[in-house]
Amino acid sequence: MKELKERILRDAKVIGDTILKVDSFLNHQIDPLLMQKAAREFARRFSDESIDKILTIEASGIAVAILTGLELNKPVVFAKKAKPSTMPAGNYTARVKSFTKDTHHDVVISSEYIKKGDRVLIVDDFLAGGHAACGLIEMLEQAGAHLVGVGIVIEKGFQEGGAILRKRGIRVESLAIVDCLQGNTITFRE
Amino acid sequence: MKELKERILRDAKVIGDTILKVDSFLNHQIDPLLMQKAAREFARRFSDESIDKILTIEASGIAVAILTGLELNKPVVFAKKAKPSTMPAGNYTARVKSFTKDTHHDVVISSEYIKKGDRVLIVDDFLAGGHAACGLIEMLEQAGAHLVGVGIVIEKGFQEGGAILRKRGIRVESLAIVDCLQGNTITFRE
Repeated sequence: MKELKERILRDAKVIGDTILKVDSFLNHQIDPLLMQKAAREFARRFSDESIDKILTIEASGIAVAILTGLELNKPVVFAKKAKPSTMPAGNYTARVKSFTKDTHHDVVISSEYIKKGDRVLIVDDFLAGGHAACGLIEMLEQAGAHLVGVGIVIEKGFQEGGAILRKRGIRVESLAIVDCLQGNTITFRE
Repeated sequence: MKELKERILRDAKVIGDTILKVDSFLNHQIDPLLMQKAAREFARRFSDESIDKILTIEASGIAVAILTGLELNKPVVFAKKAKPSTMPAGNYTARVKSFTKDTHHDVVISSEYIKKGDRVLIVDDFLAGGHAACGLIEMLEQAGAHLVGVGIVIEKGFQEGGAILRKRGIRVESLAIVDCLQGNTITFRE
C-alpha cells in the first residue's frame, strides 16, 4: 500500500536494527484516515472470502480492526489481556509474548463470541515474531473456527512471524513489509 | 441515543446491582455500525467546539475513539497501560483504578502527542467511578492542554464518576445514562 509506505518513510523512527517506531500514526497516536484506507485495502484483498467475524488483540490492533469490521459490516472481537471479573468460565486462552515489552501474558476470548465454524479474519497493526497471531490462531483452533487469513498493517519481514504463518499455509496479507532496518534506512519488500 | 438504549435493553446482561455486561457489542465483541453511530453523535454534540485531538485509554475505548477521530478528521491518542521499551522519557502519567478488574495500574501518554494548548476531547466506552477519565484529565493538566469535554457511550449514573466530573465544571456527554440496575431491570436517566 503505497500511501502507508510513504508514511512509514516520512514518520517512522528506526531504533537500532530491529525497532520501527510508528507510534505517531499507528500504535499510540493513530491517524484515522490512514487506518480507514488500510481497512479498505484489507476488505479489497479478502473480498473473495466469506467472513463472519474480525478478530484482533488489544490494544493497538483494535483501531484498524474496527474499521475493517465497518467496511465488511461484521462484528469485531478483540482478545483481552486479562480476565475481567465479568467474564464467565469456558473461554479460549493462549499465552503470548510481547516483543517491545519483553513479557508474557495470557489472552482470553469469551466462547460466546467465536463459535465453531465461524469464518474469522485476523487483523493486527504489527506482525513481528508472530506471537500474537499464533496465540489468536490457537484460540480459533480451540473454538473450532475457520481462519480465513491474517491482515497486517506493517510486517517486519526480518523477523520470523510472517514466515512461520506462511509455512503453515496461512494467507497473510501485509500492507507493508519492512525487510531491513540497517543503518537507519528502511527497505521494503517488493 | 435511542438506538443505543434499545441495544442495551436487548443485549446487556445485569449482574447483581452494579455490573452491566455489554461485551456482546461494546467492550469485547464490538458492533462497528453502532460505534459509528455513537461517534457521529459525539461529533454532532461537540460540533460547537474546536477540537485538535481525541484522547482515550486502552483498550475498549479505542474503537469509538478512532471512529470519532474519523468523523472529525483529527488524530486519536490512546493512553497506554504500561510503558513499552520504545517510549522515551518525558511523558505524562497517572495511576488509575479499574472497576471490573479491581486493580490499579499506571497509564502513560507520550509528550510527543499531546502538547500545551491542544484542545482535546476525551472519549471512552464507559464511565463508572470516573477513575480512567480523571487519570486522562490529570495527564492533560500535566501537558497544559485544554479539555473540551468528555464523550461517554454508557454512563453508570449510580456511580460517582459523572457527578465528580460535572461538579468540576466539565462538559460530559453520555449517550446513555443507566441510573439503576436493581431487580434485573435497567432504568435510564431521561
